[in-house]
Amino acid sequence: MKKYTLGIDYGTLSGRTVLVDVENGEEVCFSVLEYPHGIMDEYLPGSTKRLAPETALQQPQDYLDVLQKTIPEVLEMGKVSKEQIIGIGVDFTSCTVLPVDADGQPLCFHEQYKDRPHAYVKLWKHHAAQYEADRFNEVAYKRNEKFMDRYGGRMSSEWVVPKAMQILDEDEAIYQAMDRFIEAGDWVVQMLVGQEKRSLCQAGYKAVWSKKDGYPSKDFFEDLNPKMREFVDEKLSRDIYATTDCAGNLTKEAAKLTGLLEGTPVAIANIDAHVALPAVRITGPGKMLMIMGTSTCHIMMSEEERFIPGVGGVVEDGVVPGYYAYEAGQACVGDHFDWFVKNCLPKAYHDEANERNMDVHQLLVERVKDQEPGESGLLALDWWNGNRSILTDAELSGLLIGATLQTKPEEIYRALIEATAFGTRVITEAFEDGGVPIEELYAAGGIAQKNAMMMQIYADVTNKEIRISSSKQAPALGAALFASVAAGKEGGGYDSLEEAAEQMARLQDKVYIPNPKHVEAYNQLYKEYKILHDYFGQGENDVMKRLKAIKSAIIDKK
Amino acid sequence: MKKYTLGIDYGTLSGRTVLVDVENGEEVCFSVLEYPHGIMDEYLPGSTKRLAPETALQQPQDYLDVLQKTIPEVLEMGKVSKEQIIGIGVDFTSCTVLPVDADGQPLCFHEQYKDRPHAYVKLWKHHAAQYEADRFNEVAYKRNEKFMDRYGGRMSSEWVVPKAMQILDEDEAIYQAMDRFIEAGDWVVQMLVGQEKRSLCQAGYKAVWSKKDGYPSKDFFEDLNPKMREFVDEKLSRDIYATTDCAGNLTKEAAKLTGLLEGTPVAIANIDAHVALPAVRITGPGKMLMIMGTSTCHIMMSEEERFIPGVGGVVEDGVVPGYYAYEAGQACVGDHFDWFVKNCLPKAYHDEANERNMDVHQLLVERVKDQEPGESGLLALDWWNGNRSILTDAELSGLLIGATLQTKPEEIYRALIEATAFGTRVITEAFEDGGVPIEELYAAGGIAQKNAMMMQIYADVTNKEIRISSSKQAPALGAALFASVAAGKEGGGYDSLEEAAEQMARLQDKVYIPNPKHVEAYNQLYKEYKILHDYFGQGENDVMKRLKAIKSAIIDKK
Repeated sequence: MKKYTLGIDYGTLSGRTVLVDVENGEEVCFSVLEYPHGIMDEYLPGSTKRLAPETALQQPQDYLDVLQKTIPEVLEMGKVSKEQIIGIGVDFTSCTVLPVDADGQPLCFHEQYKDRPHAYVKLWKHHAAQYEADRFNEVAYKRNEKFMDRYGGRMSSEWVVPKAMQILDEDEAIYQAMDRFIEAGDWVVQMLVGQEKRSLCQAGYKAVWSKKDGYPSKDFFEDLNPKMREFVDEKLSRDIYATTDCAGNLTKEAAKLTGLLEGTPVAIANIDAHVALPAVRITGPGKMLMIMGTSTCHIMMSEEERFIPGVGGVVEDGVVPGYYAYEAGQACVGDHFDWFVKNCLPKAYHDEANERNMDVHQLLVERVKDQEPGESGLLALDWWNGNRSILTDAELSGLLIGATLQTKPEEIYRALIEATAFGTRVITEAFEDGGVPIEELYAAGGIAQKNAMMMQIYADVTNKEIRISSSKQAPALGAALFASVAAGKEGGGYDSLEEAAEQMARLQDKVYIPNPKHVEAYNQLYKEYKILHDYFGQGENDVMKRLKAIKSAIIDKK
Repeated sequence: MKKYTLGIDYGTLSGRTVLVDVENGEEVCFSVLEYPHGIMDEYLPGSTKRLAPETALQQPQDYLDVLQKTIPEVLEMGKVSKEQIIGIGVDFTSCTVLPVDADGQPLCFHEQYKDRPHAYVKLWKHHAAQYEADRFNEVAYKRNEKFMDRYGGRMSSEWVVPKAMQILDEDEAIYQAMDRFIEAGDWVVQMLVGQEKRSLCQAGYKAVWSKKDGYPSKDFFEDLNPKMREFVDEKLSRDIYATTDCAGNLTKEAAKLTGLLEGTPVAIANIDAHVALPAVRITGPGKMLMIMGTSTCHIMMSEEERFIPGVGGVVEDGVVPGYYAYEAGQACVGDHFDWFVKNCLPKAYHDEANERNMDVHQLLVERVKDQEPGESGLLALDWWNGNRSILTDAELSGLLIGATLQTKPEEIYRALIEATAFGTRVITEAFEDGGVPIEELYAAGGIAQKNAMMMQIYADVTNKEIRISSSKQAPALGAALFASVAAGKEGGGYDSLEEAAEQMARLQDKVYIPNPKHVEAYNQLYKEYKILHDYFGQGENDVMKRLKAIKSAIIDKK
């Protein structure tokens, strides 16, 4: 009897379940559910009251709907019996976090709270807690808290504590009513196994927890807000589980919901980007994975703990137990090219792509792929959505230089791609300068698989070989892989992540190898990029910030 | 009997004749001829031999065709007899220059030279003499020639001497065979009156002549090339005529060609931009005219001679006798917006403009005209075609800063318009800092008449009132006005340019008045523009030049 695990991947707009063959990692089939409530950023369901700017909420019922719909569907599609499913793994966007009661029920399920925005899930990209994040940073700096080193020196408004502070600031009744403030991934696992089992990966990256030092002190929380002194014990948990642990077994209710066997092992939840690492066979140091979508997330491991300015997180055992795992990011990658195609591409290009029945990105690549580095005379700074690593500055903006009356759209498109590659090089150099050497790059995500020109440019700019995930859903495959470890050898799976990755990871044969001539040409252009990067990004000319300030002042007045 | 003059305006792609009422400047009718040979920049007629890069030639027969076709046409259209035409004025692009024999026949009319590129007219935008211009500058600097002050410290490859040097360098037989090297405007006048009568305006701006000092010395020319020692006496002329002089009377042959009366007075030829000054009633100091087309030419007068770095020419009596006339320029204005609309504007905009039967520029203006200065967060440097004044650097390139994923095409469009306005302010400030105060701006050209948002932005950015020509062909009207002065009061015209302008100039009632709130906002943005202008344009970061050098090296190798 063939054995399978399920990888359940919760993304920003949908959740999917993938049925994976434990022997070889083959993705037999998958099923996706778009969240019925999507992202709620203007109104709550049935309400006409406008939500505050930068708000991004979700309805947790949607996550349960994913389980109820997609799991039975893959069993049916794959013609697999529930007895063949030896484990379940869950990965989730993070920090996506919700307030729940003592039974684990979301507060927004309570009739009395259903009109209260703060009773809902705060999605990772809920950016309305900036005020609280600023306060967090101020207090941490004043107190000279050394935990800040682990987060590149800066707390993001996306993370657990600022989001909790916002609830307390704006709707204290919700804050008081919540028994737990929990990552959505941990909450889904709780719904499956009936117990709260918090993930080290999520606690480490998003809740300021570390294996050595635990959480920040009660005094620190008191300085944030006297009512938060006991925040950790009242709203979080000090029981933190390793990424490879088994969280427990499927309850009777969950078995009914999903059509699976009661008692099926469930893995600890992990963050979507991080679980993808073993899915491309990375289980040790020296290999950086770029998960390329609308933005890019960079994950890698090292035997050493290093604090790298601007690198968003270093967590001991964060992915594979025994290693420090690092996370960095670029805020604008796929979004960049989509913006360009929607806002800057002339009619003739769309017409030609239509006529030739091809994607317009393909057409652009076809027109510009044979240019040499530097041939367009263009250079860009990839800051259309600010800069995440290593400047960590949302107020930076995009720049294009070198345009002439002969400049063609496909040349601008290529310059934007090159800019994101230069941005990646800034990150790889920061790691290497910080004592975390990188031997190879790996890439996952649709762009990495579809755009060969882009991946070759990345190889040439970084002067590193690049391997590409052959799975189109590397995080889901990764979750299935963690599920096989939760099951263990006795349960039909594997006893370690390394073994699981050896069997189940999926990589393309194609390797992008740096072209020495292009490497040299890009070294020259990167020098120019770096001069502009430092001039505009390091305070020499803060024109980008001043322009944004002028703009904001006008919009606020309107 | 009503009296008329003809303004014959030779542009880059066509020549036109306008029939103008001498009493009030009314433009009764006009006729245009596109040059049958256009611009020859790839091949000579009937040849398959590729012309050198940057070559731009014309066929002088086309200029005669303009006379033969358009003059009879306006007489017929306007129902005017040849007796009613009291004068003819000619304006021409400059420096557009050709080699002719002792009879004034272009060398390219000779069978033996018709396959030789250097026998043809070199159009103003023939840029193949850069090597010679560089040599000119080098020699002039070494000799510390003070005439360089009058040209902003730099000789352009577009002007007479480098173009002649190129002929001598590349086809000495043509150089030796030419009896005269003459501006096309002067040549057309010679064809009309039978004598060479060189214009002060053209000699002053393009042939390094001045009323006080004449031409550069024979020693200087010898240093350029020993064979050029006698260049002025052998190929040019020292008889230079004032802008308002009468060049002579129409010959019998010319009367036959044009259908006009033999003996009709013909004015001295002038440069197209410069003749437009009295057409908007500028006959004295303090008023700058911007002639806005693909590029912008700025002309103004002063009682003083000042040497302003980067201002392309100061010529005593250059437009109105008694004043010093100044010329500056921006290399990329209308071209800028055309480039944008062709290369950067998405399909939906073209579709909407089509559906609503409007020009796409109108649509863009409609969408962005109500934004406040700074609302888009964008800023641009208007150097898509290099910078003419005041940096005089063709190697500079375009820059856009402040883009985000929310940036809309109409916002980029507006930022490009604002960039050209900031570029204008750099010029007006250079004049004022150099001791040439500017009280008011005037604008002529299609853009100035059609784009009210743009003109208001120019008023707000420069903090100056702007008046607009009501003629759609201000240079042609200006030529007709000079014709009325050539005729003189006795001949039915006027004795001075001032009188003629008083009666014949045409301005719109609409005056663009700076909005104090916007002036203040733009002061803030201009400060940012100026920081970037100086950083990229004054040697602090020569990235634009380095990018162009990399690009050129690649293209040269291909």
